[in-house]
Amino acid sequence: MNSCVISAEGGNGFPSVIYNRLAQQALRHLSTNAEGADDSSSISRVISLLTISTILLSVTLLYFVNKKFHLWRDIKLTLEGIIDRVPKLDDLVELPPLQHPPTTGSNDDKGNKDYTTVTSSSKSQPPAIYDAISPTILQCYSPSTLEKLGTVPNLSADQVSNLAQRSRTAQQVWKSTTFSQRRRVLRTLQQYIVSHIDEICQLCVQDSGKTQVDALLGEILTTCEKIRTLLHHGETWLECSPRDVNPMMMHKSAYVEYVPLGVLGIIAPWNYPFHNMLNHVLSGIFSGNGVVTKCSEHTSWSSVYFHNICRAALEANGHDPELIQLCTGMAETGKALVECPHIDKIFFTGSPNVGRHVMAGAAPYLKPVVLELGGKDAMVFCEDVKLKDVLPWAMRGCFQNCGQNCCGVERLFVYESIVKEFLEAMVSKVQSMKQACPLSSNYVDCGAMVMDQQCTLIQNLVDDAVAKGAKVHCGGKRNTSNGGQFYEPTLLSGVTPEMRIWKEEVFGPIMCVITVPGDNDDVCVQMVNDCPFGLGSSVYSASTSRALAIGSQFNTGMFTANDFGVNYLIQSLPFGGVKESGFGRFAGPEGLRACCLERSIVVDRIPGIRTSIPSPIDYPMNTAQGMGFGKGLIHLFYGDSIWMKMKGIAALIKHG
Amino acid sequence: MNSCVISAEGGNGFPSVIYNRLAQQALRHLSTNAEGADDSSSISRVISLLTISTILLSVTLLYFVNKKFHLWRDIKLTLEGIIDRVPKLDDLVELPPLQHPPTTGSNDDKGNKDYTTVTSSSKSQPPAIYDAISPTILQCYSPSTLEKLGTVPNLSADQVSNLAQRSRTAQQVWKSTTFSQRRRVLRTLQQYIVSHIDEICQLCVQDSGKTQVDALLGEILTTCEKIRTLLHHGETWLECSPRDVNPMMMHKSAYVEYVPLGVLGIIAPWNYPFHNMLNHVLSGIFSGNGVVTKCSEHTSWSSVYFHNICRAALEANGHDPELIQLCTGMAETGKALVECPHIDKIFFTGSPNVGRHVMAGAAPYLKPVVLELGGKDAMVFCEDVKLKDVLPWAMRGCFQNCGQNCCGVERLFVYESIVKEFLEAMVSKVQSMKQACPLSSNYVDCGAMVMDQQCTLIQNLVDDAVAKGAKVHCGGKRNTSNGGQFYEPTLLSGVTPEMRIWKEEVFGPIMCVITVPGDNDDVCVQMVNDCPFGLGSSVYSASTSRALAIGSQFNTGMFTANDFGVNYLIQSLPFGGVKESGFGRFAGPEGLRACCLERSIVVDRIPGIRTSIPSPIDYPMNTAQGMGFGKGLIHLFYGDSIWMKMKGIAALIKHG
Repeated sequence: MNSCVISAEGGNGFPSVIYNRLAQQALRHLSTNAEGADDSSSISRVISLLTISTILLSVTLLYFVNKKFHLWRDIKLTLEGIIDRVPKLDDLVELPPLQHPPTTGSNDDKGNKDYTTVTSSSKSQPPAIYDAISPTILQCYSPSTLEKLGTVPNLSADQVSNLAQRSRTAQQVWKSTTFSQRRRVLRTLQQYIVSHIDEICQLCVQDSGKTQVDALLGEILTTCEKIRTLLHHGETWLECSPRDVNPMMMHKSAYVEYVPLGVLGIIAPWNYPFHNMLNHVLSGIFSGNGVVTKCSEHTSWSSVYFHNICRAALEANGHDPELIQLCTGMAETGKALVECPHIDKIFFTGSPNVGRHVMAGAAPYLKPVVLELGGKDAMVFCEDVKLKDVLPWAMRGCFQNCGQNCCGVERLFVYESIVKEFLEAMVSKVQSMKQACPLSSNYVDCGAMVMDQQCTLIQNLVDDAVAKGAKVHCGGKRNTSNGGQFYEPTLLSGVTPEMRIWKEEVFGPIMCVITVPGDNDDVCVQMVNDCPFGLGSSVYSASTSRALAIGSQFNTGMFTANDFGVNYLIQSLPFGGVKESGFGRFAGPEGLRACCLERSIVVDRIPGIRTSIPSPIDYPMNTAQGMGFGKGLIHLFYGDSIWMKMKGIAALIKHG
Repeated sequence: MNSCVISAEGGNGFPSVIYNRLAQQALRHLSTNAEGADDSSSISRVISLLTISTILLSVTLLYFVNKKFHLWRDIKLTLEGIIDRVPKLDDLVELPPLQHPPTTGSNDDKGNKDYTTVTSSSKSQPPAIYDAISPTILQCYSPSTLEKLGTVPNLSADQVSNLAQRSRTAQQVWKSTTFSQRRRVLRTLQQYIVSHIDEICQLCVQDSGKTQVDALLGEILTTCEKIRTLLHHGETWLECSPRDVNPMMMHKSAYVEYVPLGVLGIIAPWNYPFHNMLNHVLSGIFSGNGVVTKCSEHTSWSSVYFHNICRAALEANGHDPELIQLCTGMAETGKALVECPHIDKIFFTGSPNVGRHVMAGAAPYLKPVVLELGGKDAMVFCEDVKLKDVLPWAMRGCFQNCGQNCCGVERLFVYESIVKEFLEAMVSKVQSMKQACPLSSNYVDCGAMVMDQQCTLIQNLVDDAVAKGAKVHCGGKRNTSNGGQFYEPTLLSGVTPEMRIWKEEVFGPIMCVITVPGDNDDVCVQMVNDCPFGLGSSVYSASTSRALAIGSQFNTGMFTANDFGVNYLIQSLPFGGVKESGFGRFAGPEGLRACCLERSIVVDRIPGIRTSIPSPIDYPMNTAQGMGFGKGLIHLFYGDSIWMKMKGIAALIKHG
């Protein structure tokens, strides 16, 4: 034994010394305790015990690590992705013939009567979407060329109700599908999207006037990430959530389960025709619901095709495509969806004014609503930023999708000491942007505006700002050189609170520069919060902690330090705002659970043990005894001293 | 070495054998590997390694166990409770002189002019609460004696706005308090409540006519458990919630933080004057908000005192009591609160009809609302229950608080084969209930109705049911023998869907028995779901799994197997319903976070590494290059085959 200890002490270096000391102590301990036992046997026992502890600890640790990091889930999902190949949709999905530059072809020969693509010569005035002469159809046209794309039906309230009922019927079956089955539908969609990027982008471009890259980043990338997130986390987010019980309820097991609500009504805006529809279809069907979407009358043409892709993914996997429905129509059709008795919840994305109508319209039916109503997002450049690094962010924030983003940068706060240099550098950048019909050239940075009246609105805001002292460095007017609905990329500085543009949402390609006087963080916070909206925000500073300190004082639903728009690419984060930006959340577990009924469940934990009402508080009762017993309970469980708890026990014995 | 192995094999019993085998293998392994090394030294090294692994594993396991079970938090909170003694409120709180039976005393000499307690002789007709002759004050009276209790001001919209502004000012300071400071305020309240049970119960009894035991169980016990839950879990529930990032965002850290919304507006009903106010004050202030409560005009008298207790708890701990405010008044005062610009969110508890007005009233201001609108809860007795065990639950479910509960049992479904036996046993139980002024006798099971018109409503529902074939076994009419607003405990059977009482909320002491034909579980589910409400539900069966299987098909926000009302005593569960029972949740993390702005935050994870926009998608851009790069990204991250991912990498290299 001693030889062992001595040789151990002769180990090399610090760790060995510690190891050997421990061993030495263990052996010494053993040798003093093992009365008459054989030394070797004792050593063997020590090793056995240590080995078994190591194994037991490792297994327990693995259990916790797995619980925390979902290792088993990840393995399972990876295998599912590799082994279970999904069907291809190409035969099920009909896309219109897409050309470059786009011309329109007829779909008539394919028997699709409602959603025909008709040829029309382009005009200088946009065609009317709704025409009282044929009130049951809506005209679709391309904002960048004003070419007619086709017509869609203008659905009545009865038709909406009928579609919702069909979705409800299909949902009765769908709600019992497994998560694996739902993932399969999503993976089918994902595969189709990834292999048809060009086609989807071109549909978006034709219908909304955006550039192809805007479509790729804003429509495809976001949707793919949404699908990936749901595939990866969706089931975990909808697992039962166990809850702690209190000492009085130790015999109970409590949890929350997430049950599909039924049929969700979606009112989607026109800025991202592909993503804004799929966003809700994906979370809706993944959580077991039916989904009825009212798309915007400005982007109905592409919506019809996008919707058909979703239905094909259901059909290809053997599910009833009636689960999801599309309603094309004007405001009245949206109103019908809000009021439809077969719709259990409304998810609305749009303007605050329409949001008010949606909420008021849902009130008589006590229908819950989620409102995502746009923003007036601030991007802040502190004086310590490197201008070269941040200028591209300002460009992306202001001009992506031609400024038609809920969380686009509408207010660019630049600290006073760098504002001159910033403007000098920015003017040439904005001036260098190319604007044209997005499919006509390989060099287009800025597309058309989806709505013609939006150009007028922007012009009014810019004119008002200029009249009150703002300076237009470039742009500031419609671009009529391309024939479509274009507004020039504009750089506006010297914006102050008196101007309408300070508080009203622009939703256009306007970089609106506001100087933060005295490079003062507190003043910056005040200026940013002086706004009716509260969606997103971002601060750029050389110091991340300073950026966070400033941003944490913004009254907004989202904040990013030294980055922009990244919140939305992390789909495990909830998306939504406060104040006139609305309430409720999309995305993240919050968004997925918002599609569900959160049910609280309590069951007995121990077989055979059930609760009965204690006799002192059972009817008929003696008040003195009932009160004595009840007070005993309260003193025992909620008294803040041992004395009080003892008093409680005594009362329970006396009155129990 | 061999001797050791042999002796190890001679161990006693199964575990020893395994241990020794392991040791034997370890030693053999060592002896074959240790070339020329001393045996003892090798053994020592094995022991050292095993010991160090055991220690490391134990520490790591402890870390995970602590994360999972919050051991450190529990130790910290226990110490906080023991070491940090809270102030007593007795000197700060003025309660009215309470006697048994209650007489009223004047508070005038204490200088409290608004909330005077005046003496009045009792009448057979209840006094009018509002009188056009003095529109600025409201009369309070006791429903069980019709005695006048005092007056409270009928606040105007301006007064409400003023109170909300004062709360907002105080909240600017309060929002920065630590959770420890907030817990101290809650513990101060808890201590006061536990040591003033009789006084609080008597105030409730006088103001609402309920029995003392109803007050103890429904007002005190629930509030104490709410406080305990917030003390124990509140901080954990409001901790930042980290979120997984996707592979493209590995360099980012994402989390959700819970920021106080500002000032919450509470519209509380009259059935639990103490708990319904404190419920929201507690979660509101714990989450860092100010709280303005509009109490019911039917229970304003006690609300004033209860509110003062809350303010005293703030004051005693050095905080501004203006943080919480009480608005007494009629419906117009509630409307003013909904429309007040200083109120950030409305929590309404009441009837569906008023809920519709609240939601519609909040719509123009885009103010989020949580609506808790009562229920028509089902309790189901399967044919396999032991009647003796379940009868007390039916009694408690139907008659607690005289049936004036959101989640009281309004529909008692009894399986056909036991309904006769059930009714025989139940009649005598209901008949044996004593009804009187709750402070007049030691034997009172059923108190008065808070609202006189509620007695009329109940009578109409009962009369309608009887006219359509229901049978009244006992009760079924007003109880005029006691002078107050009493309705007799009533047993009604043979209730069918044609009767109004099948679907309309009763909110009174009516046990409404519905027979489930053929003891059929599916029929039972259909009958239960044939209801506009969806709050709580419970099923009693000898088989817990059967109870769960039935209950899981109920479209309700809460479900309990073989128990009743226990959801609400587990305050870590969210409380709320679906359909006409409203939406949004109180209690649990859901309820606490509903008082907060959920903010999504993204920051850089690795110091020095920041995101920049890849040049192919930076303005001005070449579409072909931008599309090539973007498609590369999508193929790499979302492609479903190795081939697709390789293609993505190639594209990124080409266009990047």
